[in-house]
Amino acid sequence: MKILLVNGPNLQLLGVREPGIYGGETLQEIVGRVCSLGKELGAEVTAFQSNHEGDIVDRIGNAKMEGFDGIIINPAAYTHTSVAIRDAIAAVTLPAVEVHISNVNSREDFRHVSYTAPVCTGVIAGFGSDSYLLALRALCTHITKKQKS
Amino acid sequence: MKILLVNGPNLQLLGVREPGIYGGETLQEIVGRVCSLGKELGAEVTAFQSNHEGDIVDRIGNAKMEGFDGIIINPAAYTHTSVAIRDAIAAVTLPAVEVHISNVNSREDFRHVSYTAPVCTGVIAGFGSDSYLLALRALCTHITKKQKS
Amino acid sequence: MKILLVNGPNLQLLGVREPGIYGGETLQEIVGRVCSLGKELGAEVTAFQSNHEGDIVDRIGNAKMEGFDGIIINPAAYTHTSVAIRDAIAAVTLPAVEVHISNVNSREDFRHVSYTAPVCTGVIAGFGSDSYLLALRALCTHITKKQKS
Amino acid sequence: MKILLVNGPNLQLLGVREPGIYGGETLQEIVGRVCSLGKELGAEVTAFQSNHEGDIVDRIGNAKMEGFDGIIINPAAYTHTSVAIRDAIAAVTLPAVEVHISNVNSREDFRHVSYTAPVCTGVIAGFGSDSYLLALRALCTHITKKQKS
Amino acid sequence: MKILLVNGPNLQLLGVREPGIYGGETLQEIVGRVCSLGKELGAEVTAFQSNHEGDIVDRIGNAKMEGFDGIIINPAAYTHTSVAIRDAIAAVTLPAVEVHISNVNSREDFRHVSYTAPVCTGVIAGFGSDSYLLALRALCTHITKKQKS
Amino acid sequence: MKILLVNGPNLQLLGVREPGIYGGETLQEIVGRVCSLGKELGAEVTAFQSNHEGDIVDRIGNAKMEGFDGIIINPAAYTHTSVAIRDAIAAVTLPAVEVHISNVNSREDFRHVSYTAPVCTGVIAGFGSDSYLLALRALCTHITKKQKS
Amino acid sequence: MKILLVNGPNLQLLGVREPGIYGGETLQEIVGRVCSLGKELGAEVTAFQSNHEGDIVDRIGNAKMEGFDGIIINPAAYTHTSVAIRDAIAAVTLPAVEVHISNVNSREDFRHVSYTAPVCTGVIAGFGSDSYLLALRALCTHITKKQKS
Amino acid sequence: MKILLVNGPNLQLLGVREPGIYGGETLQEIVGRVCSLGKELGAEVTAFQSNHEGDIVDRIGNAKMEGFDGIIINPAAYTHTSVAIRDAIAAVTLPAVEVHISNVNSREDFRHVSYTAPVCTGVIAGFGSDSYLLALRALCTHITKKQKS
Amino acid sequence: MKILLVNGPNLQLLGVREPGIYGGETLQEIVGRVCSLGKELGAEVTAFQSNHEGDIVDRIGNAKMEGFDGIIINPAAYTHTSVAIRDAIAAVTLPAVEVHISNVNSREDFRHVSYTAPVCTGVIAGFGSDSYLLALRALCTHITKKQKS
Amino acid sequence: MKILLVNGPNLQLLGVREPGIYGGETLQEIVGRVCSLGKELGAEVTAFQSNHEGDIVDRIGNAKMEGFDGIIINPAAYTHTSVAIRDAIAAVTLPAVEVHISNVNSREDFRHVSYTAPVCTGVIAGFGSDSYLLALRALCTHITKKQKS
Amino acid sequence: MKILLVNGPNLQLLGVREPGIYGGETLQEIVGRVCSLGKELGAEVTAFQSNHEGDIVDRIGNAKMEGFDGIIINPAAYTHTSVAIRDAIAAVTLPAVEVHISNVNSREDFRHVSYTAPVCTGVIAGFGSDSYLLALRALCTHITKKQKS
Amino acid sequence: MKILLVNGPNLQLLGVREPGIYGGETLQEIVGRVCSLGKELGAEVTAFQSNHEGDIVDRIGNAKMEGFDGIIINPAAYTHTSVAIRDAIAAVTLPAVEVHISNVNSREDFRHVSYTAPVCTGVIAGFGSDSYLLALRALCTHITKKQKS
Repeated sequence: MKILLVNGPNLQLLGVREPGIYGGETLQEIVGRVCSLGKELGAEVTAFQSNHEGDIVDRIGNAKMEGFDGIIINPAAYTHTSVAIRDAIAAVTLPAVEVHISNVNSREDFRHVSYTAPVCTGVIAGFGSDSYLLALRALCTHITKKQKS
Repeated sequence: MKILLVNGPNLQLLGVREPGIYGGETLQEIVGRVCSLGKELGAEVTAFQSNHEGDIVDRIGNAKMEGFDGIIINPAAYTHTSVAIRDAIAAVTLPAVEVHISNVNSREDFRHVSYTAPVCTGVIAGFGSDSYLLALRALCTHITKKQKS
Repeated sequence: MKILLVNGPNLQLLGVREPGIYGGETLQEIVGRVCSLGKELGAEVTAFQSNHEGDIVDRIGNAKMEGFDGIIINPAAYTHTSVAIRDAIAAVTLPAVEVHISNVNSREDFRHVSYTAPVCTGVIAGFGSDSYLLALRALCTHITKKQKS
Repeated sequence: MKILLVNGPNLQLLGVREPGIYGGETLQEIVGRVCSLGKELGAEVTAFQSNHEGDIVDRIGNAKMEGFDGIIINPAAYTHTSVAIRDAIAAVTLPAVEVHISNVNSREDFRHVSYTAPVCTGVIAGFGSDSYLLALRALCTHITKKQKS
Repeated sequence: MKILLVNGPNLQLLGVREPGIYGGETLQEIVGRVCSLGKELGAEVTAFQSNHEGDIVDRIGNAKMEGFDGIIINPAAYTHTSVAIRDAIAAVTLPAVEVHISNVNSREDFRHVSYTAPVCTGVIAGFGSDSYLLALRALCTHITKKQKS
Repeated sequence: MKILLVNGPNLQLLGVREPGIYGGETLQEIVGRVCSLGKELGAEVTAFQSNHEGDIVDRIGNAKMEGFDGIIINPAAYTHTSVAIRDAIAAVTLPAVEVHISNVNSREDFRHVSYTAPVCTGVIAGFGSDSYLLALRALCTHITKKQKS
Repeated sequence: MKILLVNGPNLQLLGVREPGIYGGETLQEIVGRVCSLGKELGAEVTAFQSNHEGDIVDRIGNAKMEGFDGIIINPAAYTHTSVAIRDAIAAVTLPAVEVHISNVNSREDFRHVSYTAPVCTGVIAGFGSDSYLLALRALCTHITKKQKS
Repeated sequence: MKILLVNGPNLQLLGVREPGIYGGETLQEIVGRVCSLGKELGAEVTAFQSNHEGDIVDRIGNAKMEGFDGIIINPAAYTHTSVAIRDAIAAVTLPAVEVHISNVNSREDFRHVSYTAPVCTGVIAGFGSDSYLLALRALCTHITKKQKS
Repeated sequence: MKILLVNGPNLQLLGVREPGIYGGETLQEIVGRVCSLGKELGAEVTAFQSNHEGDIVDRIGNAKMEGFDGIIINPAAYTHTSVAIRDAIAAVTLPAVEVHISNVNSREDFRHVSYTAPVCTGVIAGFGSDSYLLALRALCTHITKKQKS
Repeated sequence: MKILLVNGPNLQLLGVREPGIYGGETLQEIVGRVCSLGKELGAEVTAFQSNHEGDIVDRIGNAKMEGFDGIIINPAAYTHTSVAIRDAIAAVTLPAVEVHISNVNSREDFRHVSYTAPVCTGVIAGFGSDSYLLALRALCTHITKKQKS
Repeated sequence: MKILLVNGPNLQLLGVREPGIYGGETLQEIVGRVCSLGKELGAEVTAFQSNHEGDIVDRIGNAKMEGFDGIIINPAAYTHTSVAIRDAIAAVTLPAVEVHISNVNSREDFRHVSYTAPVCTGVIAGFGSDSYLLALRALCTHITKKQKS
Repeated sequence: MKILLVNGPNLQLLGVREPGIYGGETLQEIVGRVCSLGKELGAEVTAFQSNHEGDIVDRIGNAKMEGFDGIIINPAAYTHTSVAIRDAIAAVTLPAVEVHISNVNSREDFRHVSYTAPVCTGVIAGFGSDSYLLALRALCTHITKKQKS
């Protein structure tokens, strides 16, 4: 199983940016933990971070051709503004899981709206970096079930 | 670790109600799977289902006195209408995880608003009955970390 | 044919409450008239009133197992606030008719919104207690046609 | 008892137009059934269809002078856009029943608003062509009661 | 000076319709008073009433070719719904005065919006049938001033 | 007959301020014309201008005690923001006419809302300084009719 | 004088729940103080708490038959969501006073809307548990005045 | 191929009305150009203009029976207000193209909403009278492709 | 204890203005009753009424320097429009109680919004002139408790 | 004549992505057809696709300097979110035509808003890949007319 | 160069009021700094503070006659509620700069709307009392440039 | 002191794009003037322009590591659409000043909303290219004060 892990804008700053909200782990550390769990679950995880909406759209658009079976995405700020990423996820027709480190429901009003969530399989938010690990489990189970049916 | 698993209105019909959306498992089967995973993770899960907003408020209000360490709740329809359950969760000051079987973001507009999510630790939605298992993992990890810190 | 007649909150006060709006008949008298018409039309009507959203959800959830062929419901105040009753009607997949004694369209703005109407077969409002008799006729005809087709 | 039956725009196409929503009966067949029931109930029904808002306003404005005792109206599309028909019904001070073949509550948002319903005695929607028969019963009962009181 | 006096839907019922709101004069009586004042002010008034939006659009569209110097219009219900009449007034580029018998500002919310007012010279509302006489004075003065400048 | 003519904020600048919108007459000239017409119609007009909401509320509150029979008011900017002036007009229970020099309906959106209009007898807008003369005629006629009835 | 004191959802947790907002007194202590003041004012106070909307509707519906002269109600979370309690208060036609411990106007937006306030005699909010004592005074005075007039 | 070309209210004034926005060509000249292009493309174009919503609904309702293969419609003002024309287009199930001479997106806000566009095949706006020619090309191609498939 | 009692616009008309809503007592009589109760409770009450927003802002701004311990304010119309009074109350950091004679929640929509309430300690509305007496009790108790803690 | 053809995000997936909505042609095939028609019409078409909002802004900003006479743009998802592309089109002051393959008016609500359309000459939507060909014709005609005048 | 510096409601409390937000300087100290900078830049600054909307409107209305070349205004609370001050600024046609001490964009929602900003030359907000100094520089440069051109 | 000057989309066109709104200076000239003033104030200014949201997010994210003490940003179109740039500014925790050349408050409605302003220290808008110079002064003063405290 091949999984594409997409991290959106400003997540390269994890461990630095507002640790009160996002925790003190760096993105590298989180990716490392996801990859480890991936090995355990038989999934090869490829991590990708970009601050560029277009790069994320490019990468998702190619994900099927690159042989990925599913996508974990933390669209960060683009969650609330990007129809382009939504369309990319819908177009590529791979199962996708939306992840948030913080509980977006308890932050500013504009963070309560997600363009991407309706085209994803599901959403996991609020568990710090553990959100990623839960997403990987969720996605692997989902893909396995789909392959069986 | 003692976990209270609360299921809201109409979830007693699971396996019957709109299986296209909610899957074919019964609530009993799901609870069974959650309890099994609980054993594995060292958590005793007590399941409770009610169609009555007041019963759910009663039960959450008592959860601390009954010795629970955390709450998993699928408020179902009450997600979108119950300030009382929101206030109960906020009052009891136990970590809580909101769970949804379907991806509420891709359903009717009024299902995009959650009164309960802002007072929960996090939200997991869209993974069928697996949402509950993910929630249990998330909650156990969260409680363990809190106890350590 | 077995019909479940559900009356929502405060309707036990009919004949007492704001007779200028709701008329002077008691709920018992109305139920009596509905049962009589039911006999005429070959339908056994079971009446149920509750001020509890959860009781109504319980009862509707069981309606199919109890052998009912259809539901007449005056959700009263819950028309405008209960997603749980909406979900119960949708889940039980029995034909349902929404009834109102007064013309809700000419009252306060918040009474112009109905959560339950979109999942019912149809709506009858404004004819005083005759709304119930019309609903029974409508439902019996609807069930008969469905059985033929 | 003399009843004016008004049918609004595009209803001349009944039996042709989107039969999945409106059924396969023609307007002539429906009118025939209403007239038959009228005879049974002692009411002479005069049917009128127009695609012209102004024609409908004209006809309602004259209804009292023409000796009608009540109006059954399916304003169709004009339900949602015509203040003029609303004003005509209010001005003519005859009891009126608003009828819809489909359940407008489960269609597009703009069909959830009715300019005419607040000035009618009541509303019946969702029972196919039977909506008209129920409306006739409702109106005859209403007029009879009013004459007695 | 030639003035076109346009009266919209249901105004043929004046003196009949809701006299509490609109007063007891008939439209004929009002038109008579306007014509008399017109003679006094040197203006020939041609009155036109229709319940048909299209007829009103036709008539306004022709007003310049028919030699009219200005328009007094009580669009009644179409005030709040007709972009077509607005466009006709804007297209014909004659000075126009919008008139209302009642004070629309103190009635239902939907009567607070006017599509036609922004393209008129001015608006007079709330003085019963005297609104028409004031409008005639206003329009005659306006036309005279324009001719001088 | 005694009439109070109230002019609101910035109207002391008439003849100076944006003459393209408000014309070149000064407030003194307009008041002069209103008084002249008043004499003709048997009405003594007392003019009052203030930029202070409170002064206008004071003056209207005293109007009955000062023997006024009616009020003409151009609330200018306070039209759109002053509940206090609205309450003063409603409290003093004298007939009042709202006047605007420009056609407020064709200006910024916030000028389409009037707090004062619903408690006035009527509104006249868009005829330059002639709006005042029309208002005086309207008010005198209104008072005379009321005295007769 | 007999007064029914109704406390809504989660108020059984007073003294426990968010003491920063609600103070450290328990509901029992508050009820005790209200009963004491009642004795002083010649009013017998019966206290009732429930987390169940339906129970509150039941109790209010019976209040007149049980001989109560007035109602003090802290609907808590149901303030903002319950049309059923609103309808019960309106139906029972007893004077009612709405009470809040905290100043709801300075909390979340959804707490600024009250379904129940418009059908109550008045509202008292923000004085901690003293809100109840003030409400009792207000209600006793109100009932006494009504009985005199 | 037979094409019905429908022009809505005030378009009879083309060449006269606001030439800055709509250009100097008359409707006759435009229709002439459309018919010429129609000949070139093997399509017989029948032009129809009316200021009456009802006439347009009548004509569209009959379009299939009259043998038309498609409709080009410039609903003008009715674009923004007519559910009846929308319903007629949906009912007649012929391909339809909505045309606008001006770019409605850069005009008043109420012109940004189209009731008719969602039931048309496509929309062409902003190219002056050339919008019609483009629409004819678009419609002919569309019909030809449909006939082939 | 020194209390400043501020009354806003049009309250000088109490006893005159709409007695159906505000009762027949004059402001002097009410102030008299408040002062009497003040003596009883050991509070010296200074009354101040103004129709001028600026005067009220001036007075509140000086309240601390003038030695007041708390403020009772009926902002009347300014409740719904004055950010300046809100800012003055917030700036002066004295406990303040907002009072209304009528139940503002059951009047026009624009009276449901209060700029001042969120910066007050609490609100009392709907008890006629008794609202002031209740406010005085509430404020005295509040100040006493604060001084103790 | 030199034309810049800009295609926005995800359009590189045409022929792959949701063929039910967008058809089975690839972007290369569509561009090929546009270039062919360009040759016929004497226009050299340069095609550019990017998923990056910034690239599109760059390219449009340079279009005049690169000698282009006009722009055809399908902004895809950026239609609904990009003020930057809107500003680029407005800044470059070249005629531009907005193109959509599907009828955006019949899709999700957020697709009914276009930031770019108000600054374009016109819009063509709903004709599949033929929308591009129509746009090219429209643009060429527009440029030719402009050059003549 | 003569500059009028206008300070709105509650700014007389600067140095006292919420120093966490507004800093500890008094208004006198700030005015002193502005005058000093004025001398440096060749501008005579006249300072004016009032809590009265009407006083501010009076003063701005006279500013041109008093020989001022420009206005610096901190409308404070009136920023968000005063159309009268907006109209005064627009009427007097002097360049004006709106100043705020705090960053209004990060405070309550109602502080994000400014009636006055659209009629000012520019806005400076968030730099504490330095906002005034920046405004003076901006205004002097603006006036000098205007005089040159 | 090191200052990063960020210019957003289309600002490379300054001097070319709509000079009526933005003036005739090029971005190079403006940057030159800012650097000169920087030298005067002891600040080294590094200018950066990009049409790419992602590039701006990248650059701001690195600003602290690159040793910058503060940021001046004209986000141009991204002001109104970019949550990503907002999050970058908040994450980097450097003082930032938002600059606009034109007065955005007097332009289209969507330009009245700023995602970035709430996380900046302050905003300066409307003074043409002088806005940048004012921003530099404001920022230098702000940084100096912070360093002292």
